[in-house]
Amino acid sequence: MAPGSERTPLLADRPRNSEDSTRRAEEEDAALHGTTISPSAPRRVMREVVLFAWALIATAAVIVLAVILQHHNSTTSPSPSQPPPPIAPGDPSAGGPYSTDSTTTKPHNNKRNLIFMVSDGMGPASLSLTRSFRQLTESLPIDDVLTLDRHFWGTSRTRSSNSLVTDSAAGATAFSCGRKSYNGAISMLPGHKPCGSVLEAAKRAGLATGLVVTTDVTDATPACFAAHVDMRMQMDEIALQEVGAGPLGRTVDLILGGGRCHFLGNGTSGSCRQDEVDVVGLAKEKYGWGYKGDRAGFDELRGGKNVSLPMLGLFADTDVPFEIDRRHMADVYPSLSEMAATALTALEDATKDSDKGFFLMIEGSRIDHAGHFNDPAAQVREVLEYDKAFKLVVDFLEKSDTEGVLVATSDHETGGLSTAWQAPNELPVYNWHPSVLAKANASTEYCSLLLHEHMASAAAAGESEQSLINWINEELAVRRLGITDALEIELNALASNPAAATTIFSAMVSSRARVGWSTHGHSAVDVNIYSSGGKAAEKIRGNVENTDVGKFLSEYLSVDVDEITRELEDKLKGSEAVEVEVKGDAEMSGHPIEWLKDAGF
Amino acid sequence: MAPGSERTPLLADRPRNSEDSTRRAEEEDAALHGTTISPSAPRRVMREVVLFAWALIATAAVIVLAVILQHHNSTTSPSPSQPPPPIAPGDPSAGGPYSTDSTTTKPHNNKRNLIFMVSDGMGPASLSLTRSFRQLTESLPIDDVLTLDRHFWGTSRTRSSNSLVTDSAAGATAFSCGRKSYNGAISMLPGHKPCGSVLEAAKRAGLATGLVVTTDVTDATPACFAAHVDMRMQMDEIALQEVGAGPLGRTVDLILGGGRCHFLGNGTSGSCRQDEVDVVGLAKEKYGWGYKGDRAGFDELRGGKNVSLPMLGLFADTDVPFEIDRRHMADVYPSLSEMAATALTALEDATKDSDKGFFLMIEGSRIDHAGHFNDPAAQVREVLEYDKAFKLVVDFLEKSDTEGVLVATSDHETGGLSTAWQAPNELPVYNWHPSVLAKANASTEYCSLLLHEHMASAAAAGESEQSLINWINEELAVRRLGITDALEIELNALASNPAAATTIFSAMVSSRARVGWSTHGHSAVDVNIYSSGGKAAEKIRGNVENTDVGKFLSEYLSVDVDEITRELEDKLKGSEAVEVEVKGDAEMSGHPIEWLKDAGF
Repeated sequence: MAPGSERTPLLADRPRNSEDSTRRAEEEDAALHGTTISPSAPRRVMREVVLFAWALIATAAVIVLAVILQHHNSTTSPSPSQPPPPIAPGDPSAGGPYSTDSTTTKPHNNKRNLIFMVSDGMGPASLSLTRSFRQLTESLPIDDVLTLDRHFWGTSRTRSSNSLVTDSAAGATAFSCGRKSYNGAISMLPGHKPCGSVLEAAKRAGLATGLVVTTDVTDATPACFAAHVDMRMQMDEIALQEVGAGPLGRTVDLILGGGRCHFLGNGTSGSCRQDEVDVVGLAKEKYGWGYKGDRAGFDELRGGKNVSLPMLGLFADTDVPFEIDRRHMADVYPSLSEMAATALTALEDATKDSDKGFFLMIEGSRIDHAGHFNDPAAQVREVLEYDKAFKLVVDFLEKSDTEGVLVATSDHETGGLSTAWQAPNELPVYNWHPSVLAKANASTEYCSLLLHEHMASAAAAGESEQSLINWINEELAVRRLGITDALEIELNALASNPAAATTIFSAMVSSRARVGWSTHGHSAVDVNIYSSGGKAAEKIRGNVENTDVGKFLSEYLSVDVDEITRELEDKLKGSEAVEVEVKGDAEMSGHPIEWLKDAGF
Repeated sequence: MAPGSERTPLLADRPRNSEDSTRRAEEEDAALHGTTISPSAPRRVMREVVLFAWALIATAAVIVLAVILQHHNSTTSPSPSQPPPPIAPGDPSAGGPYSTDSTTTKPHNNKRNLIFMVSDGMGPASLSLTRSFRQLTESLPIDDVLTLDRHFWGTSRTRSSNSLVTDSAAGATAFSCGRKSYNGAISMLPGHKPCGSVLEAAKRAGLATGLVVTTDVTDATPACFAAHVDMRMQMDEIALQEVGAGPLGRTVDLILGGGRCHFLGNGTSGSCRQDEVDVVGLAKEKYGWGYKGDRAGFDELRGGKNVSLPMLGLFADTDVPFEIDRRHMADVYPSLSEMAATALTALEDATKDSDKGFFLMIEGSRIDHAGHFNDPAAQVREVLEYDKAFKLVVDFLEKSDTEGVLVATSDHETGGLSTAWQAPNELPVYNWHPSVLAKANASTEYCSLLLHEHMASAAAAGESEQSLINWINEELAVRRLGITDALEIELNALASNPAAATTIFSAMVSSRARVGWSTHGHSAVDVNIYSSGGKAAEKIRGNVENTDVGKFLSEYLSVDVDEITRELEDKLKGSEAVEVEVKGDAEMSGHPIEWLKDAGF
């Protein structure tokens, strides 16, 4: 703007006509001399009419502006952001990825539901893997996306206190306590110091609480919400704490998942406990739990409409089978989405007359296992099932009368998955092949199990090596994995090294699909955060630390994990720490590895 | 709320005292009978005072509300979101990742600057790799983040029209035209159909335009903004089109980067052209370009203060060296951030009296090359330099009087990088080692170059095999890569297979750092989007298609790429298409690969 240019300020004097000026002069004069003006009757009436009209118009303007402002405040937050309007389902061209802010239309009475979902081991590559797989198998356009994609919210940094690559225990402690800890820690900080979890604090604050997983309910992720032990392998102790035999008593109302064996006393059928404690019996008798131990029992819950809390549902000895296998055993095992739907209904029903809502953690536990096995065909089905459960929660929140939020993230990536793989001594190929994954109808874990079962019986029957190889090819490679071109070297390796069968089967699938893996462990890549959105979750939008996600959980519910920490410190005083080998620092010097032997030089 | 419960409407009548009621009755009566009430003088004055006060208060309220509303509108968009306040630099605990919305405080005169940055080949794993490297080497806390991390905006899906794994050409066409095309396409759609680029449309609309890269300026990414050819390898033609000898004439005002060899006629020193065309001469004489061909020339530009457009700056025969090497040759080559700063200053200066701003594309080109070479030590320095250039743009926009936006993304991931690697026949390790990358002070590409130079001279001198191995160990492994424990097998492989030296050096570094790679090509993982933020960029927040990013670019500048497309179609009518082998579909059947030979079974 040129200097000296004229501006019109907002409240600039308007030019007055001469009558106005005269009148004003009169008024000023009167004011100065302390007298009243005696206007003529018509002028007086006119003045009052003008004053009245002015007052009326200004009042009307106030009302209009107040209404606009009110509307503004209800649709935008004062400073943080607000998502655009919802996207029509099935409309990938809609652009933005956000859902409605369900928090703005619900009554403001502090009753809140929080659903926290964990996609254990799901890194960024799993998404493009699963999205392209789904586009192929369901004949969808190339811009079709998952429900997760529509709710992309940000990414989370995952390192633990003692390593650049976290495990699920330190990862879940970051979520449950909002604190960094060492790999293996179940809501414990270094030095045998417990930290209170959001679930425990929620329970103390009067909310209902639940855990839904597809692995052992004593595994690291669920354990961190309702137990405190030095190392994740203390699963017998975790089972006890989860039902109420821990320092805080019972803090969970609903547990659905696998890992039944940790709840049955050593010596009884299906037990994997070291001791003889009948945890199911203890749960029922001492802590008042209802118990369902199989699919029939799950069906009795009638999708959550027939649940009286506390309810313990353990539907598998250890893991619920991978979804790719479970589909063929649906009469034995419920799916993640079935369990999630049951939990949502049960917890909503249990809190319907309460002024407090619920906290529910739902884990797609075995995305991680598919990563550990390097099995991409199993992984895409796990991610699809997780996506289905995610959609179910989004729909639940939209329909619910109670304010609520869904936050979903991963603890870490597993496998170093890459949607591209270059074979040794070949040029890179700029493609990968979801059709290979589509042809597989069993996990490599299950194929390995079938192989071991067959070999046990075949050995008894004196089967020849060639007959075994033929059986592997026909029954496992072709029939289960959809591989019709298995190589001699692959089949021989399976027959001669059945202990490595899962790895060999996985490499057979992955190499044909041109999917790469760098490890059977975890990696350090940032993982995605998804949310049903709204201003409530604004704090964790963008790239955040995993502990920020954990802090958000207790902040959203306005519950105090520090108070639980103090209670735990008092109660655990004098308890014995398990020997924990905590690495001093993430940084160790690299050492030479004979990678060259296998690299084709 | 219980049915029938009483609500108090916003404008509920307040209870009146009896005097009010009497007065109102009088007024109503008078109105009905068409008469005026003759109040006593004090009551009349009182009434006028009350009316005046009412009018005054209501007016004041209008003003206050209007100001509030005005403020509201300037700090929040009507429906889409608004970033939270800026984060103090160096305060990682601040939570949110967003920067100020620089668009809200600038004059609204349609003058806009758009800086689009491309981190070629940078996938999600590169970020945790570089962040942890920086924390180690600069002794920063474990929650310290890159400038990029603070501006995380979303992720982009990258597939091309003919493959799940894109190349940089199809990737850049998605950005330049907002259209999906086949791998290799330089702003061309299948069937020899050109598509107008945002840079060309910006130029037509009167904006200044620039391209800054660290590879050949004729490489796929820059080419897509200012050229149209069927396949990316047509670099001789791309050079011609970039200086103005294409269907649209000159559309670029400023070009800074490498790739000088494509601008020098075959037969002259440093040329790599097939023909004898002196493109530099043509550019100067026919299209009015200024030209700088070396570091001294770059310095004459005085950081952009001494640039008269159009200006062509070519500072390397082909690629500018990797930053890890360039640091030691800063007297020969400018860095990405030096070139970016120069471009920003030059373009701002050139548009200072214009009512149009500028469009500038800045590419961190060689993050991709480090991925292709699987060289993590080179990559972290490339990403750090890109982060530096990114910060420089953020700072520029904050200080600029002109409204502007920075959008940064990658075209694809390169290498299938994983921040974890499991050695054959070992258990997985839950860690990786940035210290290994910190010890390296040269790229594996540069080590390979030194090896070849040495072998050429050593062969002449009749050096023994053992002497060569010793030289490799001392001069390259120890001195350049910081590897003091090279294995015999590694050194022997280098001596006997120097053609594979880059790959071998890279594996020596990567295996020690426990960094994994799945390919020397690209992968399909979604890549990150970063932005200076603001409501302008809300459309590309979340998970979007790469073409959505491209569409945003032209929408933000309100320029019409379709108009350019029509002009190109007219002008290219009858021109000959280069034979392009376009794969029919992304989906091909996987085929068996002898992965087992090298897998340790």
